[in-house]
Amino acid sequence: MKKFMNMADTMVAESLEGFVAAHEDILTFCPQRKCIARRSLRAGKPALISGGGAGHEPLHVGFIGHGMLDAACTGHIFTSPTPDQILAAIETTDTGGGCLLIVKNYDGDIMNFEMAAEAARERHRVEMLFVGDDIASSLSNRSGKRGVAGTVVTEKLIGAAAERGMPLAALHSLGSELPERIFTMGVALRGASVPELRRPIFSLGPDEMEVGVGIHGEPGRSRQVYSGAAAAAREMCDEILAACGPNRTAQGLLLVNGLGGTPPAELYLMYGLARRMFEAADIKIARSLVGTFVTSLDMQGISITLALLNDEQIALWDAPVHTAALRWS
Amino acid sequence: MKKFMNMADTMVAESLEGFVAAHEDILTFCPQRKCIARRSLRAGKPALISGGGAGHEPLHVGFIGHGMLDAACTGHIFTSPTPDQILAAIETTDTGGGCLLIVKNYDGDIMNFEMAAEAARERHRVEMLFVGDDIASSLSNRSGKRGVAGTVVTEKLIGAAAERGMPLAALHSLGSELPERIFTMGVALRGASVPELRRPIFSLGPDEMEVGVGIHGEPGRSRQVYSGAAAAAREMCDEILAACGPNRTAQGLLLVNGLGGTPPAELYLMYGLARRMFEAADIKIARSLVGTFVTSLDMQGISITLALLNDEQIALWDAPVHTAALRWS
Repeated sequence: MKKFMNMADTMVAESLEGFVAAHEDILTFCPQRKCIARRSLRAGKPALISGGGAGHEPLHVGFIGHGMLDAACTGHIFTSPTPDQILAAIETTDTGGGCLLIVKNYDGDIMNFEMAAEAARERHRVEMLFVGDDIASSLSNRSGKRGVAGTVVTEKLIGAAAERGMPLAALHSLGSELPERIFTMGVALRGASVPELRRPIFSLGPDEMEVGVGIHGEPGRSRQVYSGAAAAAREMCDEILAACGPNRTAQGLLLVNGLGGTPPAELYLMYGLARRMFEAADIKIARSLVGTFVTSLDMQGISITLALLNDEQIALWDAPVHTAALRWS
Repeated sequence: MKKFMNMADTMVAESLEGFVAAHEDILTFCPQRKCIARRSLRAGKPALISGGGAGHEPLHVGFIGHGMLDAACTGHIFTSPTPDQILAAIETTDTGGGCLLIVKNYDGDIMNFEMAAEAARERHRVEMLFVGDDIASSLSNRSGKRGVAGTVVTEKLIGAAAERGMPLAALHSLGSELPERIFTMGVALRGASVPELRRPIFSLGPDEMEVGVGIHGEPGRSRQVYSGAAAAAREMCDEILAACGPNRTAQGLLLVNGLGGTPPAELYLMYGLARRMFEAADIKIARSLVGTFVTSLDMQGISITLALLNDEQIALWDAPVHTAALRWS
């Protein structure tokens, strides 16, 4: 697998440098490039900070800006940012309203964000919010579900609420109920290749599909014969519907996300299939998002996220946002 | 190469169906699904109509909406839409201001759009605008340059001018000078695979790069050893600078476009390199766009577009737009 990069060692730094240059109207590097933060911070608004390994772009840096995050920290490929980076983000963006650290549910991320929170608490109010939406995750760490594409929905809703003036504790409690509402399932037709290796982390045969993949190149929970888009969508949507349980609400946001190497035409084809399947299960698709938002390097794969949102949450989704990767008014 | 599709025969129709469902607030199918058009047309505004083969999504359907196109026609994969489809788009969207057909510079597209224009001219005022920005194209058909990623810039500028009330003839003349200002160069690390074949149209070795690729799977004009992103960016930017000539203006829009299978992190890395190279040549990068806008199915490739724009053209770029693939206010 070739990549548009120079050396594996410098890939993340070079990519972030390009990213900041392209979006310098919205964001800027923190001192020593420990994080990337919004150019304009609003005094007293709780600071929303996220981060994680590189290789998932545009997550999280693409969601810095009005209506979403105030800062994001990027680690090495598939590796948590350091506590030092997270602490820099807290110090850069806390304008008196405290900080909410939005952390995808992985042990490495949790450990480093908790260390940073602890170090910061002398001078800052800090709350941690864990994001978990991947229903395929079998290993239970805390809530049990890993944080994957549903992170976008969480960061959007919390970001909108923060812009409206919601205080830190209320943001935390709004976010804490989201894992019960957001369900993601992913499949891959070709694994991600990390820069050092230049070959897929897991290899699939010409007729194989990996089901239940995460975003770190780890294999999924089963390997199946790939028999086309409809069967793949069926597999994913059935699992999502089962996870929703019988008390599911009547409306949802449907996010079809490309994992890095999947072209838009295929994302839309899968969106159409998934939408019909959910509608057949009496879920109204009230909002939609189709695109490449949470990646696993160049993985040729797709994830489907169903977020069952109430009217207030839909209104937060609709609120204005101005970031590199999501923008509307 | 596996794809998220069912049958090759139905791939385009299924993908468009998903697309329309995802963006039903903006657009809708025309009768018999011959084209896709804006839901709300403004009486008297010249109708902007584009189209081309499928496999380039989100081009053109993703650019239907306020500030860009009124309708787009999609043919089979890499195949022009039929005159019948184009005629339907004209009849659906002409509200008295006439129609501007925005046509990428390919013989097949030109022929079919011209046939439709001829058939429509009894009842409609129709002008044709040819888009050509690919400096690698060696075969000269009309202006000589094929229409590739620069099409996005053309459709954005013309669309903004039309919203402002510019009449048909002036839109045509605004568009006609753009080929002198917009320069694109593309490279690929892996060729596109068409649904019927399920393998790349052209095959590259593990250390090879195809230089000067178009968007229809045709090989480029040379094959080179791939020695990393910096050398690839150098190759593309040098050619673009040479094409700009000595009278280049001092400011430009830099578009780094993914050709379908290239993840965002790599696009941003290339953007950073290209930006520095153009700035070193005294071109101020006044505006930027990085993402997957004009694809060649799942090609792992990238194109760099430099559009040398005057202040008025920059203002048209900045004007509000509300489409599936470009949105700001």
